[in-house]
Amino acid sequence: MIILSTKESPTSGSVGTLPSSSLPIFSQEEVSRHRTLEDGIWVTYKGGVYDITEFVAIHPGGDKIMLAAGGSVEPFWALYAVHNQEHVLEMLSEYKATESRGPEEAAEPESIGPLFLRPERHPVLRINNLKPFNAETPPEILTESYITPSVFFYKRNHLPVPNIDPATYKLQIEIQAPTNSERGGGVLSLSLDDLKNKFPKHTVTATIQCAGNRRSDMHKAKQVKGLNWGIAAIGNASWSGAKLRDVLLAAGYTLDDSKWAQHVQFEGLDQDVAGTTYGASIPLKKAISEDGDCLLAYEMNGEVLPADHGFPIRVVVPGTVGARNVKWLGKIIVSAEESSSHWQQNDYKGFSPSTDWDTVDYKSAPAIQELPIQSAITVPADGAIVDRSEEEVTIKGYAWSGGGREVVRVDVSIDGGNTWKIAQLKCSDKGADGETTPPPGRAWAWKLWELTVPLPEDTKEMEIVCKAVDSSYNMQPDTILPIWNLRGVLSNAWHKVNVRIQEEE
Amino acid sequence: MIILSTKESPTSGSVGTLPSSSLPIFSQEEVSRHRTLEDGIWVTYKGGVYDITEFVAIHPGGDKIMLAAGGSVEPFWALYAVHNQEHVLEMLSEYKATESRGPEEAAEPESIGPLFLRPERHPVLRINNLKPFNAETPPEILTESYITPSVFFYKRNHLPVPNIDPATYKLQIEIQAPTNSERGGGVLSLSLDDLKNKFPKHTVTATIQCAGNRRSDMHKAKQVKGLNWGIAAIGNASWSGAKLRDVLLAAGYTLDDSKWAQHVQFEGLDQDVAGTTYGASIPLKKAISEDGDCLLAYEMNGEVLPADHGFPIRVVVPGTVGARNVKWLGKIIVSAEESSSHWQQNDYKGFSPSTDWDTVDYKSAPAIQELPIQSAITVPADGAIVDRSEEEVTIKGYAWSGGGREVVRVDVSIDGGNTWKIAQLKCSDKGADGETTPPPGRAWAWKLWELTVPLPEDTKEMEIVCKAVDSSYNMQPDTILPIWNLRGVLSNAWHKVNVRIQEEE
Repeated sequence: MIILSTKESPTSGSVGTLPSSSLPIFSQEEVSRHRTLEDGIWVTYKGGVYDITEFVAIHPGGDKIMLAAGGSVEPFWALYAVHNQEHVLEMLSEYKATESRGPEEAAEPESIGPLFLRPERHPVLRINNLKPFNAETPPEILTESYITPSVFFYKRNHLPVPNIDPATYKLQIEIQAPTNSERGGGVLSLSLDDLKNKFPKHTVTATIQCAGNRRSDMHKAKQVKGLNWGIAAIGNASWSGAKLRDVLLAAGYTLDDSKWAQHVQFEGLDQDVAGTTYGASIPLKKAISEDGDCLLAYEMNGEVLPADHGFPIRVVVPGTVGARNVKWLGKIIVSAEESSSHWQQNDYKGFSPSTDWDTVDYKSAPAIQELPIQSAITVPADGAIVDRSEEEVTIKGYAWSGGGREVVRVDVSIDGGNTWKIAQLKCSDKGADGETTPPPGRAWAWKLWELTVPLPEDTKEMEIVCKAVDSSYNMQPDTILPIWNLRGVLSNAWHKVNVRIQEEE
Repeated sequence: MIILSTKESPTSGSVGTLPSSSLPIFSQEEVSRHRTLEDGIWVTYKGGVYDITEFVAIHPGGDKIMLAAGGSVEPFWALYAVHNQEHVLEMLSEYKATESRGPEEAAEPESIGPLFLRPERHPVLRINNLKPFNAETPPEILTESYITPSVFFYKRNHLPVPNIDPATYKLQIEIQAPTNSERGGGVLSLSLDDLKNKFPKHTVTATIQCAGNRRSDMHKAKQVKGLNWGIAAIGNASWSGAKLRDVLLAAGYTLDDSKWAQHVQFEGLDQDVAGTTYGASIPLKKAISEDGDCLLAYEMNGEVLPADHGFPIRVVVPGTVGARNVKWLGKIIVSAEESSSHWQQNDYKGFSPSTDWDTVDYKSAPAIQELPIQSAITVPADGAIVDRSEEEVTIKGYAWSGGGREVVRVDVSIDGGNTWKIAQLKCSDKGADGETTPPPGRAWAWKLWELTVPLPEDTKEMEIVCKAVDSSYNMQPDTILPIWNLRGVLSNAWHKVNVRIQEEE
C-alpha cells in the first residue's frame, strides 16, 4: 500500500470520509503524469492522492478504472452507483497516498483573476487544443449515462476562460431599435442575484453539439480546417436558469418590436488579445418563443455552471448548434441584424463540396442554427477486437437532431449497410417504463441507443454502421464526400466502425 | 383548314373572342382521343374544338404544343405569356373545328350530384389511377412556372370526389374534451359564406407534396405497395381562405385547452362504399400557431377551389405532407387523440428497410407530418439525347423541405456525383431582383432551380444528379435502398437522370 497524500479531511461525502494526514503535496499536474503502469496509476478523491497501480488488476469493473488515471475518481463514482458503498471507500483508503495542490495553485494559468485561475480539467478528456482549452469526452463514457457529467462534457472555448467575479457581474440587455424606427432604445442591467431571484427558475434537458463534431471523419476523406474532433463534441445536460424570453420581456421587449427586430445577439466576456469578444446571434423567433426554451443558465446538472461552461451565465439555445450557446454572457442585444462577429458571418456556415478557400463567398450561406440529424457509435470502438466466444456484441451510441425534432428510429447494420436492425432507444436514465415523450418540436435531448446482436458466423470482420431518423423523417446522408465542406462542419454521414472477430484457438 | 366545332360565343377573354357557329358537337372524351398525328391533334379553346394537326409542324414553340393535344390550350396560354396576342387567336381560328360537350355531359361520371358530375381533367396529366382519380403533372411542365396552374397540379384522391352544394355546405368544428376533463364540449357550424365573410381572408403560397412522390424510384430498387408516382406528385399554389387558428378560436378554443388537446383532426366528406370518410390529424401546435399559417382554403391560385382539390373547403397545412391537407372538409375536431383513420394510423408512416409486411408494427412509427428535404430534376428527362452542337445543357428542377425550412442550396452533378456545381435558385416568378426571403421557419413554397453547363468533352453520357440542402442543413440521402420502406413513402434520395450526348457526324 502506498499512501501519497491527502490535502484535507473531507467533512462530507456520499460514502463517508477519510482521515487526514500530513503527507507530501503533489500538484494536479504531477498527478496527471501518472497514467500508465510504468509511471504508476494515481487518482484523486476529495483532495487526497492515491496510488492504485496495484489495484488496477483487481478492480471489479476491469479496465474502466484506467479512465480515471491521473485524475479524480469522483465523477466515475457518481456515474457508476456501485461505488456508493462504505467498503469501496475502505478499499481506496488502502491506497492513500498524499495531498494534491488545489487547482488554484496549478502552474501556467490561462488567465488570472480573483476566483479561479484555471478550471480543473479531468485528464480523461481528450485534448484537442490547450490554449484555448478544447477537449472532448472519450466516446465510451458518453453513453454510460443519459446526462453527461459536467466534468466529462466536451469543452469548446474560442478564447481564454475569463475570470468573472459573481458579486460584481452584470448582464446588459439592450433593445437596439434601428435609427429609422420610432422606438427608442432600452437597456437593462441585471446582477447574478437578479437573474436568480427576479425570474422563475426553469430547467431544460438539452443536448449541445459542436458544429465540428465528427470533423475527423470529414478530414480523413479530404482535408479541412478546424479542430480535429472525434465523435464526442456533443453532450447532454440539464440546464437551469431564467428564461431568455422572460428577461427580454423584462427589458421592455414588446410584440411591436417584432416589426423590426429579427435577431438576438449575444456577446461573451471572453476576449482575444485585441479585445474582440466572442459573439453570435439567433433568430428572434427562437429567443422569444414560449416553446423555444432558451435559458440564461446559471446551473449545469444541478450545480453552479463550471468555468469551462460559461460561469456565471451562458445562454442555452436548445436544438441549436453549440456556437450560438454563448458562454460567459456579457450582453444581449435585440436587433434588426445578425451578430457581426466572425463566428456568425465568416465561420460556422455550410458550403458546397465544390467551394474552396479561393471561391468561398461567406454571404452565400446562412449561419448554422439548427443542426441536422446525427448519430454515432460509441461502443465498440473502431478497430476493437471481439472474441468469438462472446457469441454476441452490444453496440451503443447516441442520436440527436436539431430544432427540437425527436429521434424516432436508429437503424444499425453489422454488414456495412446491406442489412439493418432497429436499435432500442432510451430517452432517460429511467429505462423505458419511466420515460415520457417530449412535446412535439421540443425534443431537445438526445436518445441513447443500444443493440445486441449475435456475432455473424461467416465473417471475421464487421463493419458496424448507424443512421438515425428524426420526426421530420430526415435521415443521415450515406457518405461523407458529397457533404464535405472546407470548414469540416455538419459532418453527419453514416457513422461506421470496423470490428475484428478473434476466432477461438 | 379544318373547323370542327365551337360550343358558344365567348364573351370575354384575354385576347379577344371567336365568332360562334353551328358545327357538330364532340364530347371531351372524343377530343381527348385525338392526341397523335395519326388520329389528328385536337385541342379546345373556350368551348371550341380545333384540329391543329397541320399546325403542329409550324408551331413557333416547337413540340411543346403536343402537351395540349386532346385538351385545352388555355392553361398553356396562361403559362406562356407569348400567346397573349391578337394574332395568336387569329391563327387558332383558322383551325376552328366544332363544339365540344361540356363536362356535365361527359359519360361515366364518378359520382352524381347537383353541381358537377366529374371534374374536368386535362389529358396532359399522367394518370396513375382512374377511380379514384390520381394523376401527376408531366415533369417538364412542373418547372415552367413558380405557381403550378391548378389544372396541372397533381390530383391525389383516396375516394370518389363528392358533390357538395355550396349553398347548403356546413363545416362542423368540435372541441372534443376528454370525459375526465372539466371542460364541456363545443360545436360550431359554419356555412361557406360564414367562412368567407366572418373571417379575414389570408393567402399563403405553399407547396403540397404527396408522401409517395418519387415512389417509382423506390419501387425500381425493390418492390413497394402504392401508386407508382414519378417525380411530380408535388406542386406549388397560392391558397386563400380563413385561418384555421381564427376558426378554432371562434369555436371556443382557449389556451387552457392546450392542457388536454394535442391534435386537430379533419374529416372529409368523401366516402367509400361502406360510408367511411377520409380523415387525418395534425399536431394542435401547428394548427393553432400564429406562424403555422394553416388555412381553410376556398381558393386555389385566385380562383374557386377546383373539385379535385377539395371544393368547397380544404385544409392547407403548409410544410406538412399532402395526406394531412384534407379535402372536401366536413369536420374539424380538437382532440386529445390523433385521428383514428386508417391513413393516420396504418398508412403514411415510415419504417426501417428491414420492416416487411409480416413484421410491421404500425404503432412503432409516427404518422408522417413534416416531410424531409427533397429535390428532383425535371429537365432534361431521363434518357434524353442532347446534340453535341448545342454545346451546353440547361438543367432544371425543384427543391422543397418540410416544416417551413427554406431550401438554401441545390448542388448539381453531371458526373454521377463526383463533382458538384451550385444551381441558381428562384423563389418567385419575378426573378432574383423582385424576390423576398420568407420569414424564418415559414418557407412553405418550393424553390425552382436551374443550371446551365457546357457539355463535357470526354464522354458521351452524363449522369445528372441533384441534391438539396435546407436551412437546418439537412441533406438528401445518397441512395434509395437504405431508406426503402414497404409503403414506398419518403423517397428522397438523390435524383438522377441519364442523358446521352449525340456526337456530330
